[in-house]
Amino acid sequence: MNSERYAVMPIGWVESPLVDRAQAPRQGDEGAPPAWLVFEPQMAKGIRDLRVGDDIIVLSWLDRACRDVLSTHPRDDEDSPLLGVFSTRSPDRPNPIGRHRVQILAVEGLRILVRDLEALNGTPILDVKPQSDNAAA
Amino acid sequence: MNSERYAVMPIGWVESPLVDRAQAPRQGDEGAPPAWLVFEPQMAKGIRDLRVGDDIIVLSWLDRACRDVLSTHPRDDEDSPLLGVFSTRSPDRPNPIGRHRVQILAVEGLRILVRDLEALNGTPILDVKPQSDNAAA
Repeated sequence: MNSERYAVMPIGWVESPLVDRAQAPRQGDEGAPPAWLVFEPQMAKGIRDLRVGDDIIVLSWLDRACRDVLSTHPRDDEDSPLLGVFSTRSPDRPNPIGRHRVQILAVEGLRILVRDLEALNGTPILDVKPQSDNAAA
Repeated sequence: MNSERYAVMPIGWVESPLVDRAQAPRQGDEGAPPAWLVFEPQMAKGIRDLRVGDDIIVLSWLDRACRDVLSTHPRDDEDSPLLGVFSTRSPDRPNPIGRHRVQILAVEGLRILVRDLEALNGTPILDVKPQSDNAAA
C-alpha cells in the first residue's frame, strides 16, 4: 500500500435521534428521520447560501465503520452473494465516506435541518454540495 | 475549529490526459476525456464486481485545491455573485473531495477505464460507489 495520507477535518456534526447502527435504516429513503447538520462557526460563510428546499449531497465520515473490509454481503444479508465493497454502499470500506442525498427543511444560523438522513448522531460532516450536476461551479 | 482529524488514503490514482486545472472542464459532461482508474493491488477484492457499463460515483482527493476558500464566484466567473462554497461544486473547499459520476468503459485487471472524468492526472481516488440509490447495501 502506498503510504500517502490526507487529513480531513469535520466542518460540522450530525445531530440525530439515530444512535446505533442496528437502529439505522440502510438508506435514507427507508425511514430515516430528519436530522440537524450543526456547522462549526468558522464555516458560516461557506453555508450562507444554503436555503430551505435545496437538494444537497452531504458527505460524512462514518467514524464507526470498519476500514479493512473489501467484500460484503449486500444489506448484511448472508444469503446474498459476497460482493466487492466498491460495488456496494456498505459503510465498512477503506475510506468510510458516507454520501447522503437530502433536502433542506429549515435553516437556523449554523444549524440546518434535513430530511431522511441515515447518519448516526455525532457523525462528522466533511462536505456539502448541490445535487444538481448543472449546479454553479 | 475543532481539532479532530481523520486520515484518508488513496485506493488508487487517476491516469488522464488532463494535466492542469486551466485545461480541465468544469464538469465531466463538458468534454472531459476518458481516464483510467488505476487501483492499488491491495484493493483487488474490492473492485472485482465492477463491470463494463456500470454507472459509478468516484470520490477523489483534489490534491491541488486550496482548502481555505469559503466563498467563490461560480465557474470562476467574476461577474457571478460570490456564493458560499457549500452551494457550489468548486474544487477549492475545506475538504476537497471530488465527486464524479462516470460510466465504466473497460476493465483490465486493476485498471478501469471510465467516460467523462474531469479529474487531473495523478489525482488520488478515495472511493467508488454505485450511482443507484437502490444499489446493494
